[in-house]
Amino acid sequence: MRALLESAARKQSALIVGLDPTPGRLPKEISVLELAPHEATREFCRGILEAAAAEVAAVKLQSAYFERLGAKGIETYAALIEDAHDLGLPVISDVKRGDIGPTATAYAEAHLRVHGAECVTVNPYMGSDAILPFLEEARRMDRGGGVFVLVATSNPSADYIQNTGEPPVYERAARLVADLSSGGEYPDAGAVVGVTRPEVGRRVRELLPGTLFLAPGYGAQGGGASDVRALLDQRGGGVLVNSSRGILYAHEGSERDYREAAREAARSTREELKSAGVRC
Amino acid sequence: MRALLESAARKQSALIVGLDPTPGRLPKEISVLELAPHEATREFCRGILEAAAAEVAAVKLQSAYFERLGAKGIETYAALIEDAHDLGLPVISDVKRGDIGPTATAYAEAHLRVHGAECVTVNPYMGSDAILPFLEEARRMDRGGGVFVLVATSNPSADYIQNTGEPPVYERAARLVADLSSGGEYPDAGAVVGVTRPEVGRRVRELLPGTLFLAPGYGAQGGGASDVRALLDQRGGGVLVNSSRGILYAHEGSERDYREAAREAARSTREELKSAGVRC
Repeated sequence: MRALLESAARKQSALIVGLDPTPGRLPKEISVLELAPHEATREFCRGILEAAAAEVAAVKLQSAYFERLGAKGIETYAALIEDAHDLGLPVISDVKRGDIGPTATAYAEAHLRVHGAECVTVNPYMGSDAILPFLEEARRMDRGGGVFVLVATSNPSADYIQNTGEPPVYERAARLVADLSSGGEYPDAGAVVGVTRPEVGRRVRELLPGTLFLAPGYGAQGGGASDVRALLDQRGGGVLVNSSRGILYAHEGSERDYREAAREAARSTREELKSAGVRC
Repeated sequence: MRALLESAARKQSALIVGLDPTPGRLPKEISVLELAPHEATREFCRGILEAAAAEVAAVKLQSAYFERLGAKGIETYAALIEDAHDLGLPVISDVKRGDIGPTATAYAEAHLRVHGAECVTVNPYMGSDAILPFLEEARRMDRGGGVFVLVATSNPSADYIQNTGEPPVYERAARLVADLSSGGEYPDAGAVVGVTRPEVGRRVRELLPGTLFLAPGYGAQGGGASDVRALLDQRGGGVLVNSSRGILYAHEGSERDYREAAREAARSTREELKSAGVRC
């Protein structure tokens, strides 16, 4: 996790900008260029990265939106990881993969080695086999990589599996994170904990007092700065908050340049988090 | 599921060939061509498909092995789906994706629409939100698509999450499959149920008497034809068995052409399943 933590401390920002680019929602500055969808996506996202770079600790790329553009979309995904690195931003590949050992190894190599992201998100449904190959690959990285395991997600139907059983499944997933972790302060296995269910987040924090959380669900999904507080550790840190649509589409409904709107949205979100007491 | 079921009935085969191509394990017929890894992978897999086409109901592509080859690997993935269709074989994209609604929609469009697979595998950890967009996309397909939800997987650490709670999580995942399904005999939501834990498979069959199972874990992962019997429905059908490494690498340790070895492995596996009473 070192790459992420150092960047957050340097920038004094707990904010991550998420790239979930939808071709139908491109701003006019991009649509007038009449580019192919994968090129338009590249230009749009590069503009967002340049605009938000000073305000954010890292960038999270949501793989699905690039996969939808076919092989060319994967070229765009790779190019944006390079763009992020050129801007000094570490990258979280939000892939939520999970599969048997040899396949998990192939996924880990794809995203952490071939494409060069620092961190990746993974799904715990298949247990430790499906997670360890990602951690092993992250541990090979000089610059300090990491893996975020889905523990308690931010979506409406998350409870159906995650909040079943006694203790609930999310506690079991949290224990898996603790068991697989290695490293000192904020070890290399982190947890995805949405900000939309603060009571669940508080319980996961009790179980994982020293773990870095990646927190989706802020803004467009309904979570606010006060909801983030439930996830903080004893020193008021340990949480990186993702905002995707709230930054990407900040220009919608106004006449502003999309980059200017994104920069302002990133700046105000970063300040909201600071005001809520989130430390980096 | 219609595309898969019709193919299985026509071929009288419950066997699916899985493509998990590892560049380091390519046969000499391919390695002498000195192709780029994505081209060698294409040639190898095309040879496997041509060799096995008469023996199998469908092909399952494991996305990880193509992602590892970068954007060029996705071109190979797309080309192999076309090759499979040219050979009359429906395709299951084994992607095990699972994410919030808009992202699940992007994944569904990527694999079922852009790349044109008939079926896809998905992960239930995030609940129904993460599955419904795939079903909706499959339902738009003229040729009868489907979605296989991970219920009880074949890997060693599967029990950690899946077999926790009372009733266990895999039962809850099975109920999700039942709730989301639509269609008559063998509806459009199927279940991934490994052959490595027959007692779990038997219980899932009780809960899902009319559901099509995709059964991994045969051969290289330790499951045998007798283990498949626990998964069968009342008429002795309802199961499609995947074999990947057992067919792909059947040539290893012999001097046979890899295609000939793959064809024989596919033929004998198909016969084993028939002898075990698996009906199509």
